[in-house]
Amino acid sequence: MAKQKKAPRPKAQTPKGFRDYFGVEVSERAEMLRTITGVYHHYGFDALESSAVETVESLGKFLPDVDRPNEGVFAWQEFEEDGNGDWLALRYDLTAPLARVYAQHRNDLPTPYRRYTMGPVWRNEKPGPGRYRQFYQCDADTVGTASVAADAEICAMLSDTLEKVGIPRGDYIVRINNRKVLNGVLEAMNVTDETAQANVLRTIDKFDKVGEAGVRELLGKGRLDASGAYIDGVGLEDNQAEPVVKFLTSKGANNSETLANLRAAVGDSVIGSEGINELEEIATLLAAQGYGPDRIVIDPSVVRGLGYYTGPVYEAELTFEILDEKGRKRQFGSVAGGGRYDDLVKRFTGQAVPATGVSIGVDRLLAALREKGRLSSKAQGPVVVTVMDKARMADYQSMVAELRQAGIRAEVYLGNPKNFGNQLKYADKRESPVAVIAGGDEFDKGVVQIKDLILGAKIAENATLEEWKALTNQFEVPRSELASKVAEILESQS
Amino acid sequence: MAKQKKAPRPKAQTPKGFRDYFGVEVSERAEMLRTITGVYHHYGFDALESSAVETVESLGKFLPDVDRPNEGVFAWQEFEEDGNGDWLALRYDLTAPLARVYAQHRNDLPTPYRRYTMGPVWRNEKPGPGRYRQFYQCDADTVGTASVAADAEICAMLSDTLEKVGIPRGDYIVRINNRKVLNGVLEAMNVTDETAQANVLRTIDKFDKVGEAGVRELLGKGRLDASGAYIDGVGLEDNQAEPVVKFLTSKGANNSETLANLRAAVGDSVIGSEGINELEEIATLLAAQGYGPDRIVIDPSVVRGLGYYTGPVYEAELTFEILDEKGRKRQFGSVAGGGRYDDLVKRFTGQAVPATGVSIGVDRLLAALREKGRLSSKAQGPVVVTVMDKARMADYQSMVAELRQAGIRAEVYLGNPKNFGNQLKYADKRESPVAVIAGGDEFDKGVVQIKDLILGAKIAENATLEEWKALTNQFEVPRSELASKVAEILESQS
Repeated sequence: MAKQKKAPRPKAQTPKGFRDYFGVEVSERAEMLRTITGVYHHYGFDALESSAVETVESLGKFLPDVDRPNEGVFAWQEFEEDGNGDWLALRYDLTAPLARVYAQHRNDLPTPYRRYTMGPVWRNEKPGPGRYRQFYQCDADTVGTASVAADAEICAMLSDTLEKVGIPRGDYIVRINNRKVLNGVLEAMNVTDETAQANVLRTIDKFDKVGEAGVRELLGKGRLDASGAYIDGVGLEDNQAEPVVKFLTSKGANNSETLANLRAAVGDSVIGSEGINELEEIATLLAAQGYGPDRIVIDPSVVRGLGYYTGPVYEAELTFEILDEKGRKRQFGSVAGGGRYDDLVKRFTGQAVPATGVSIGVDRLLAALREKGRLSSKAQGPVVVTVMDKARMADYQSMVAELRQAGIRAEVYLGNPKNFGNQLKYADKRESPVAVIAGGDEFDKGVVQIKDLILGAKIAENATLEEWKALTNQFEVPRSELASKVAEILESQS
Repeated sequence: MAKQKKAPRPKAQTPKGFRDYFGVEVSERAEMLRTITGVYHHYGFDALESSAVETVESLGKFLPDVDRPNEGVFAWQEFEEDGNGDWLALRYDLTAPLARVYAQHRNDLPTPYRRYTMGPVWRNEKPGPGRYRQFYQCDADTVGTASVAADAEICAMLSDTLEKVGIPRGDYIVRINNRKVLNGVLEAMNVTDETAQANVLRTIDKFDKVGEAGVRELLGKGRLDASGAYIDGVGLEDNQAEPVVKFLTSKGANNSETLANLRAAVGDSVIGSEGINELEEIATLLAAQGYGPDRIVIDPSVVRGLGYYTGPVYEAELTFEILDEKGRKRQFGSVAGGGRYDDLVKRFTGQAVPATGVSIGVDRLLAALREKGRLSSKAQGPVVVTVMDKARMADYQSMVAELRQAGIRAEVYLGNPKNFGNQLKYADKRESPVAVIAGGDEFDKGVVQIKDLILGAKIAENATLEEWKALTNQFEVPRSELASKVAEILESQS
């Protein structure tokens, strides 16, 4: 066997911005992914798992992190003798890979192609509290149809999904907007320069924080923010700001009112009108299926950061309040988002392939449910068969095998059995509901001791074996009744 | 919105050695992972999901691919201004990360720590047919106990797992060996040089192919292989080869006989005897729980490639025959393996932390079940509601919503509805069991047409709408009976 060379000890640490997940964190996520993909499947979507690694070329550069190393992705070059190996990267989302998959396999896939997928994605971002460089997404997309019925369907499915995972109606809202309306507003404002356009969109995103007056300042000369810092403005004329202000204040008491206000904001922009017509069609389709504005609503404040959207964009927000790290109340915020991206596949094929889809931020949604105490973590530790006599390990293993065959999660203590207190501490740490004890006396008499640990948990930490045995939540039963008695205690605990 | 700069079209391709998985391939794997982790959990193991990315330093270099770029891993350097960023890499297995996790979190984890984990791993290997650079593993390990009861438990669990996923008893065998016995044999042979040791181990691995005489040649001067190529030998004296030949031919009619033969092979080597005693203890523990040699057997031919094993090693092999790519019969081979690696955690902490565990090659196991036709792919396409009149999309969506509420997987056709034949081809490609049709006539009469596609599948490809409607497997029912009639047809199909 090759021996290792002497080297300084490696640090036992995840790389910066990465973390590990333990026990119920893992099983709760698995359960949620199963629920979400169950809804997607029910809607006719088919599973896809693409590779985690893509060529940098096929991923494209659509992340907003232009100032980050590799523009926000983890990338490396394939080794080739001539130094011309492909650049590879970890996927940063599940949409860019879908475009590649569809372009690659389009002759074998149905059109339209509805697919769902889930898995981790990686961002080469600056890590921060609660901000990780690997996180889960669970996406559903429809490729190959320009019909906004596809967008409506995905919004309806998103609403169903949120309710299915445990967010009650009223605690979330799916909001829809349309990039074409935004483009119409820019047209009405006569802002054609790309940088200025991007700046206007950024300003729109700040409307929630700074309000109408703030937006006017930011579009014009600039603004002194709450911290006392001066934020430079976009430098537009006062009258140029009108369409965007109209747009931002266009949300009416119902969808019809909002749509009418939006028509005023885009003026005679053709692209703007097209966008509004699409929103109207989506609203009609959703209303026909019973999805009212208490679940899905047209909301002009939705922008979505990614650069590849070309039509309807949508976002699911949780509307209940939580306390932030400083103890202030705030709305939980966005847990899912998506939209139409008609040009992503075209990058590969040269032919326009319309597509639309949603991505659920699984880890954020889990955090929300945890926050609200809505995850019924039925995680229960295993029954622990303790070891009083190491030489009888085969007997203890037989007990455990019997328990497992009876459908009970169980294990034998495999640490050093000398210190019985350690076995109790272990059972405690595992949150074991029941411990089984059998030493020489018990084997001689053909019995076992069974301990209800839920009742006895509190004093377990420091008790001696004798004290522990003396508790009334301990039962001596014939060896043959081991499994049935343990099952009975587990039943009584639940 | 930032527009994309003109650039040559990217190739729509996965990087070399990577692939995508579609539909049932994904759901069958998910189902298998669920079954396997269910058994692991039942045995008392807790879930862990560590990050896919580790520092190169903490992964260590334990792969046999020393001649590959980055020694077999995908690695890159973190960007830091000073150029001294950490080297990061994708995990190549799930064991090295466990050692890091345990070292990092050991104060919060129970001891012993039983954990299971699953997920993709990545190897920077030369891709080949059926050989991918990303594949799934599903592992269970026990960290913090030197007791071989832990090894026995994992072998028993492996046996249970294989039966649970659908490999019947008799179609698999779990074989156990012990690195200490191998070391004892090397001691008895008086081979102390590390390179020579590694060469001897490689030769042992070839025993199945070349037999006793071949091994003698390979340990001595060398051998002319079947292709006519001359393979250099290890260069040992004839008598030095005796212990290894004894060892290789030590498999007896039962475990006791094998153990006796092994004792003869290791002679008076202390480490060898220790290894044999451990194997004996494992056999006793397994026998007490009813795992006979039809399921788990001591077999000296098991070596396991990874460098970090220090004690018992085990391997699950499927024993049924399949046809290889050239149509020749061969045994399916190994689907899982593992062993004891007492020094992996020590790399980080300096303190010995004994550990043992198994890794199931999920993709290989899936391939085996597929090969044997044992995956009951109940994948069924969705009911497709066709679109005869685009203006009535809201009505079609309502039909679909009703079907879904009745628990039926369903979708509306979202492609261009003009060519009805395309809708039928689509339903065919989706393997839809039922199509729903409603045009102006049907809406006027308050009915829908429901088509049983399983019966009608064969002629669907080229039929006109009229021909299609005339088939007897088509039913006209009142609109209000849509969901119940579809349910009835689905019921009749299953």
